[in-house]
Order: sequence, then C-alpha cells, then structure tokens
Amino acid sequence: MVDIATRVYNHKWKIDPIVRSLIDTDFYKLLMCQSVFRNKPDTNVTFSLINRATDIRLAELVDEGELREQLDHIRGLSLSRGESTWLRGNTFYGKRQMFRPDFMEWFEGLRLPPYELEVKDGQYELTFEGKWPEVMLWEIPALAVLMELRSRAVLADMGRFELQVLYARAMTKLWEKIERLREVPDIKIADFGTRRRHSFLWQDWGVQAMMEGLGDRFTGTSNCLIAMRREVEAIGTNAHELPMVYSALAQTDDELLQAPYQVLADWHEEHDGNLHIILPDTYGTQGFLDRAPDWLAGWTGIRIDSGDPAEGAEIAIRWWQSRGEDPREKLVIFSDGLDVDKMLELHARFSGRVKLSFGWGTLLTNDFRGLVPDDALAPFSLVCKAVSANGFPTVKLSDNPNKAMGPSEEIKRYKRVFDVGEQQAMKVVV
Amino acid sequence: MVDIATRVYNHKWKIDPIVRSLIDTDFYKLLMCQSVFRNKPDTNVTFSLINRATDIRLAELVDEGELREQLDHIRGLSLSRGESTWLRGNTFYGKRQMFRPDFMEWFEGLRLPPYELEVKDGQYELTFEGKWPEVMLWEIPALAVLMELRSRAVLADMGRFELQVLYARAMTKLWEKIERLREVPDIKIADFGTRRRHSFLWQDWGVQAMMEGLGDRFTGTSNCLIAMRREVEAIGTNAHELPMVYSALAQTDDELLQAPYQVLADWHEEHDGNLHIILPDTYGTQGFLDRAPDWLAGWTGIRIDSGDPAEGAEIAIRWWQSRGEDPREKLVIFSDGLDVDKMLELHARFSGRVKLSFGWGTLLTNDFRGLVPDDALAPFSLVCKAVSANGFPTVKLSDNPNKAMGPSEEIKRYKRVFDVGEQQAMKVVV
Repeated sequence: MVDIATRVYNHKWKIDPIVRSLIDTDFYKLLMCQSVFRNKPDTNVTFSLINRATDIRLAELVDEGELREQLDHIRGLSLSRGESTWLRGNTFYGKRQMFRPDFMEWFEGLRLPPYELEVKDGQYELTFEGKWPEVMLWEIPALAVLMELRSRAVLADMGRFELQVLYARAMTKLWEKIERLREVPDIKIADFGTRRRHSFLWQDWGVQAMMEGLGDRFTGTSNCLIAMRREVEAIGTNAHELPMVYSALAQTDDELLQAPYQVLADWHEEHDGNLHIILPDTYGTQGFLDRAPDWLAGWTGIRIDSGDPAEGAEIAIRWWQSRGEDPREKLVIFSDGLDVDKMLELHARFSGRVKLSFGWGTLLTNDFRGLVPDDALAPFSLVCKAVSANGFPTVKLSDNPNKAMGPSEEIKRYKRVFDVGEQQAMKVVV
Repeated sequence: MVDIATRVYNHKWKIDPIVRSLIDTDFYKLLMCQSVFRNKPDTNVTFSLINRATDIRLAELVDEGELREQLDHIRGLSLSRGESTWLRGNTFYGKRQMFRPDFMEWFEGLRLPPYELEVKDGQYELTFEGKWPEVMLWEIPALAVLMELRSRAVLADMGRFELQVLYARAMTKLWEKIERLREVPDIKIADFGTRRRHSFLWQDWGVQAMMEGLGDRFTGTSNCLIAMRREVEAIGTNAHELPMVYSALAQTDDELLQAPYQVLADWHEEHDGNLHIILPDTYGTQGFLDRAPDWLAGWTGIRIDSGDPAEGAEIAIRWWQSRGEDPREKLVIFSDGLDVDKMLELHARFSGRVKLSFGWGTLLTNDFRGLVPDDALAPFSLVCKAVSANGFPTVKLSDNPNKAMGPSEEIKRYKRVFDVGEQQAMKVVV
C-alpha cells in the first residue's frame, strides 16, 4: 500500500509524472473516440481549457515550466503492450472486443498531438487543435495535470508530518462518506472523478476504499488504468462533445435540430444494452426528449448531468411513461456534482421508481475542502471542452445557464432552434 | 516517515520486537533504579502484573508463545553503546552526569532477570522476582509487551486497507486533540504514555505529533529511547514503588509512618531542583502533607496521580500556604488518566495560581476508543507493581480506593497507621 504522504514529500512531486499512461483517462473517451474514429475521423476540432473559477489564478499558482514538462511527458506516452492487451481482450459492459481491431491498431500507434500554451490574465490558455479522434484524448489528461499541479503547488510548502496528517484527515473524511453510503443496501456507485482528482495516487486510493467499503455496490471506475490495475469494471458511455461537435457541423437550423439525434443514431448502430444511455441536456432536456424519435425511448437509460437532478429524473420518467415505457425498467444515472447527501436524497426519492446509478466525481476524488488554510485545496470547476469544429464554434447550453458555453450570438441561436425557455441558474461547484 | 499501517500489515507483527531497547522505558525508572542501586541494592522484590479490567481476558486474546517470545527477547537486550553514551553524556533536567559512573557500569552489564508466567482464569500471572534494581526494570517493558500484543491480536484479522483507515482515523483523532491543546499558549505537556501505549510506532508517532503541534509547549517524553531518537527531553521523577517498598520493609508502625518521608529524604540527597517533586498520594495525600517535615514544603512541586485532581491540587496549595510557601512558585504536575477536556479544565482553574504541567499518558498513546467494533482496541487498566519486598507484602492506598492494592489486612493496618479517613471512589479508566 502506497504511503501517499511520504511519496508526496519524498518526491516533492518532481519525478513523479501525473499522467502515467494513455489509458489514465475516462473510459467513455475511448468509446467516443472509436465512434469518432469511424464516423468523423477527419473533423478538425479545437479543445480549450476553461477555468470557471476565475478567482483561482492558475498561472500564478502553477509554474509554466512544470506544466509544460507534464504535458510534454504525456505527448511521449504510447499504449503499452499490457494496456493494449487489456483493451483488446477484456470484457466491457459484458461485451468482448468492444474495441475493433482497426481502432486498436490506430490507437497503438497514437501519440497525442501538440498543445498551445499561453498565459493571459493569470490564467493558462491551453488549446489543442487537430483531428478530432486525436485531440479529444487530451481533455482528461490536461485537466488531471492542471488539477494535480495545483495540489502540488499547495502541498509544496508542507512538512512531512503536516502531509501525513492531511492525508489521514482526507482518508478519514472519505471513509466516513463511504460508511454512510454502505448503509444503503442497494445503492450503485461508480467513480467518475478522474478529470478533477486531487492526484492519481489519491484517486487510486479512493477506488480501493470504494472496493473495500461498498463491495458490489461499487460498480467500477471511469479510469481505465485504475480499472485495469484494480480489476474492476471500466465505466462510461458518452458525453456532450458528440452533440456539440455534430451540432457545430450542421449547415442549417434544421440540421442543427437533428444533430443530437444523429449522434445517438450513430451510437445506436455501434453499441447496445447498457451503453444505450441518453445524455439529454446538451441543449435542454425537456425539448430534447419531447422531440426525440420513438426508438430512443427504447434505450436503456438516461444520464442526468446538469440542472436540478430530481427534476431531470422526473422529466425522464414522465417522458418514458408518455412513450409507453415502464420507468422501473429504465436506468437513471446521476453524475453532476454529487456528494453523499445528494446521493442519499436521490436514492430515497427514486429507488423503486427507476433503476438507479450514481457517477460520483470530484467530491469522491478531490474532497480536500476544509483541510488546509484558506481552503487552498478545495476542488474547483475546471473543464476542457471542444470549442470549435471545422472552424465553427461549438455551443453547450445544458439545463443550467451557468454551464452554458459558446459565443453569445450562437447561444441565442441554439436557444431559439432548440426552443429552450426559462432556465434555473444553479451554482457550479465542481 | 513510517507508514504504520503497512508495517503492521507486512510484518503481521511477527518479526517486529515490541521492546527494542533497555531504554525503551520510562525515565523515572532509571532515576529510581539509580537511587535503589545506591540505597537498597540487596532488597528482594517481587513485581506482578495486575489487570484491573477483569473482563479483558488477556490469556485468551494473547498467545502464550508470542508473549514468551517477546519477554525472552527483552531478556536478551543490553544497553547499546549509543544508549550508554546518551545516558552518560546527555543533560537531564539541566544536569550533566545525572547517572553516576558506578550505576552506568552496572547498567551496561545488566540483563533483565527471569520471569514467571502462568495462566489462571483467563489471565496471565506474570511475576518477576529478584534484586530490586534489576526487577524494577521489568515493569514498563512487561506492560508495553502485553498492551501491544493485545493490539496485535485485534489487528491480526484486519486487511491492509482497514488498517490504513484505522491509523488514519487514529492520527486524525490525536491531531484534533493536539489542535485543541495548542490553542492554550502557555500549556506544558509531556508524554507519559509508554506503559500502556498502543504500540511503539504509535507512541513514536504521537511524540512527533506533539513536537510538531505544540512546539515548546511539548516538554518531552518519559520514554528514554524516543527522547534520545527524537532529541527531546526525557521526563520523570519518582513513583509509588519507592514508598511502597520502603514501607513494606518497615519493622514497626512508627517506622511505617516515617517510611514515605525516608524515601524523599534519600531523594533529597541525591537530586535537586525540578526532580524535587513530591508524590504524596501513596497512603493519602492529606495526611501525608499534614505530617510532612518542613523541608519538604521547600521542594519544587507535587505530582497529583489519583483522586479528584482539582481537589488534590487545592490540598497542595493550602498546604504550601500553611507552610509559608508561595504556591505560584510551585509546580503541580497532573498525571492521572488525563485527556484534553480534563487538561483544559485544570489549566483554566489553576493557571496563575501555581505552575502547571501535565503528564499525558494512555489517552495520548493509546486512544483507539471507538475505532473498531466492540471497542476491542480501547485501552484498559493494566499495571505491574511491586507486591512484596523481602517477603513482606506491599500496600498502596492512593486517593482513590479503586486503586488500592495489597492484602486486605495490611490495607486496614496502613489506613489506621496513616490515619486515612473516608475516600471517594473514582472509576479507573486507564
């Protein structure tokens, strides 16, 4: 077992790379990558880092040289033989050979494309431009690097002993959360916390804690490297970048309105079963479901990732009922800013009405709130998103206007096209 | 920094001796030993283990073979060169050459005498018989061995991860105590927790926590080995065994009544300054002070080790005043069953009225209460005491009848001789 405090102290984090592997990333990135590799291999996409917490001046906290070192290190990574074997040979979601030979061959030869880094107004402007299937794989490692460099910057001045007490407290805090969750006999939770984790070692510890504490109720981790090493399920389906890029490529308003369904039509062809999970909120959940084709109501479930989660689930339940589906047969995955109270509340409300699952993210892998002065280790809302595709800007609305992204003129157009009415603004914590 | 959880897990405690050194003992044992070596070298004494917590059936928890292994290991120990150098060369209580050359020469040649071990009614009957200066050095290691073997027995079934969470919680718990104590700017606390520690590594961690958390307010540790390694003060003066053995050797009631003062007269000759600390409670504090010679009122301070500590301190203050001494110049050391609340309460009450110091014992080095099911790691009241001297039984009364020891007829006689009236019974936790 790794003594994280000692490791942190001894290495002073200099020789310990943050991202150790190309599969130290979210499983859904690989699933989507394979899909993009087949359907839109030549689309040119730009991903960009966006720090929603403007008061955290990352470029003042994190040394640019260290950041470049870590990013350069990632560019030097390629799939190892063992990783390739695992991706080719493992069963994901009950399916063998989830990754096709042509995709694997491409992936085995992949190195991540160059990045562009500038400093502006105390923030890093970090962008990645190139072919969609390549560039998209930067998202998770870029976020993990920034988050962990920020942790390291705060930890750098701490003594051995302070570090040990810090991690003892963080462990105790997380374990006490798990003890509350384990009181619910039928809860299902996966780790979705790779991108904004405190550190790799800490996420890895958290996964072990979940394994030990929750047993079968811990359904797996989104992190492929940890899933492989700890022999748990790799978890994930699809994300907003698919409808965002498809939508940016739409030539007309009508094509735009159809773009999110085209994403799922492509997905429908490629996958089945538990991978048939709708992510409905990119341009407003209610309108998306109202206009959805009937075959989508036959999908396995839905993922609620913005807005009031209970309201989102109620909308989904009403929609299934209106399409003659039995919600009790449907899976609702909550994945937005969850912590224990929220999970217990949602479980109490929806247990028995639908099948339930939770994707527990940042507050699983980075809840260092209250553990150091000035809350300097508290997680914050850092994202890395596709901002343009073939030169056209992307737009995300979601069910929370505080999560909207894109040029304001385009946001207006999307709101009009997707008929998004009044939305309730909610604070974005992580 | 030692990762205690991993060490516990990897070794399964088999190859890790519990007592690693002859000076892994309390400093006052060595001070007293030197005194006994000079004044009563040929007195024959028996020490015996007494488990006041009869519900904890040690012989069922702790394997006899393992116990013998640990005790035999201790018999194989002798003073190392570095330890000898430290004892000879270090400054203790501001004094060089605290330990005389003749004592050091004897100590360097010492191996601990044999032990006798039997099992009776689920408990170990562990006795040590021989020359007082040799036998007395068994007390602390014998207790530490039993306490730690009990910890190991409970921990043996725990997984790696459980152990890590356990120690994370224990660290957090201790650190939170220290954080409360550090809010008091002028508090003075020493570690007195060797005998009933959870384990050696844990005591060592606790000392480091105190050093880091309290700085100068942590005045040192009673444990010589840790004091040497961590370069802090070794703390301690004298204990009940001196008056108990001197009293057992008394031929008449009158000699008996004088015996406790004879102890301090011998001590007076040998030491000065901060080692002039009265331990008044062996046969009742009030009577002891009332009958005390005037020169004793000139001593530096008093140690309160049984009964209601505030009441004990008030008795001492009134006594000093009655002898024309200024209590504000006197040191009161509290050392009985302390934890944070009690220390803060006593500090609030006596700060400014006397000089204050705390000897924090078992609840510093073994507060694993509430951390495992059935509280199987909670500390308990295990002692190892001189029970006879040259064939005569020893007696201890103290200010708490629950701490009284000795044959009941003898207790009666002592109560009569020392004129001990009604006493308030208090629960003995540790």
